[in-house]
Amino acid sequence: MRDIFTAELTALGEDLVAMSRLVETAISSAGTALLTKDLALAEGVIADDHTIDAMERDLDERCVQLIAQQQPVARDLRIIIAGLRMSASLERMGDLARHVAELARLRYPAAALPAEVEPTFTAMHHAAVDVARKVTTVIENLDLDLAAEIESDDDTLDDLLAQTFTLTTSGSAAMTAQAVVDVTLLARYFERFGDHGVSVASRVVYLVTGEVEEHHAH
Amino acid sequence: MRDIFTAELTALGEDLVAMSRLVETAISSAGTALLTKDLALAEGVIADDHTIDAMERDLDERCVQLIAQQQPVARDLRIIIAGLRMSASLERMGDLARHVAELARLRYPAAALPAEVEPTFTAMHHAAVDVARKVTTVIENLDLDLAAEIESDDDTLDDLLAQTFTLTTSGSAAMTAQAVVDVTLLARYFERFGDHGVSVASRVVYLVTGEVEEHHAH
Repeated sequence: MRDIFTAELTALGEDLVAMSRLVETAISSAGTALLTKDLALAEGVIADDHTIDAMERDLDERCVQLIAQQQPVARDLRIIIAGLRMSASLERMGDLARHVAELARLRYPAAALPAEVEPTFTAMHHAAVDVARKVTTVIENLDLDLAAEIESDDDTLDDLLAQTFTLTTSGSAAMTAQAVVDVTLLARYFERFGDHGVSVASRVVYLVTGEVEEHHAH
Repeated sequence: MRDIFTAELTALGEDLVAMSRLVETAISSAGTALLTKDLALAEGVIADDHTIDAMERDLDERCVQLIAQQQPVARDLRIIIAGLRMSASLERMGDLARHVAELARLRYPAAALPAEVEPTFTAMHHAAVDVARKVTTVIENLDLDLAAEIESDDDTLDDLLAQTFTLTTSGSAAMTAQAVVDVTLLARYFERFGDHGVSVASRVVYLVTGEVEEHHAH
């Protein structure tokens, strides 16, 4: 019985890793689609998001079944509950990647981003992909050092969000109101993506160390 | 044993209702603070958000304890898991109300909203407060008709969000880039508030009817 349970827990962990890899691909492609005006890539992200959604539903259902059948207590129970929450965060990260792709598609063949914010968004894209990659590794290897790095990547995303606000409000005549709206939304999507990455990593840290770190939600 | 468990479940429901009432107050006050430039009211919302956060942590911990101690199965287990998720959504609704209050405070003594979007935000505020009030009643009375109304209020919020985009990009000379950024963020906060309200209501509907409705996440 215990072996079956351990096998089930391992399978849950593997599914979270697989889900996290899909999120990685989604944010990587969405950012590239945005920065290079690649319509096909944007449409791919949008079409693939349902796979991440389906994985969340499947994973959640299995967590509930596992609790009902195995009646875990203490640490085992906390792992499963953490799994439920991690899958919710990963699903939301997939949504945010899809939102980036949707806005890129909406403005195509024009660029959603004015030229003056491209370097900022290149950096945001880079930081968000870093977050996603590290989240996968943190779940897979319970690497606590990497969890700390995710927080630092998230700080970078916060700084870059502030930078986009400065750029949009600096009175540059080149930026239309439409561009200001788009830039604001896109920067917020990337920044929220980072927040959810931190949230996933924090749950892993908590499971390993038993320590809760408080994060100020954005 | 069963009686204790039922009492515990009732207590969880009561706590969710209490949490939802705090969210109601938060969004009501945040919107008023925004629309009337009431600094004290904004600061109150910001200061009170930690109470909602603490309730979420407490409620979550009790849900986990309840599962560990009572080992519920089937419907009881689903109720507790749904409780965990509802508390997460309510906590997020509190955050979004706080974000509205923070932006009102940041711009004080100036208004965060230009005059031309005030009617739209008055309507958004109204719809968001409606969502929050109905969410409380849905949790308290398992009122499915009201759950359907929340979806309609959320549609209103979606329409109003689209309306703010039209207003900000219509080329009105009166709106600065800063105002466009603020309006975009604020409209998005209200719209996400509605999404989370729908999510809470859907979980109640699912518990009562066993039917999952799919919602497209924004």
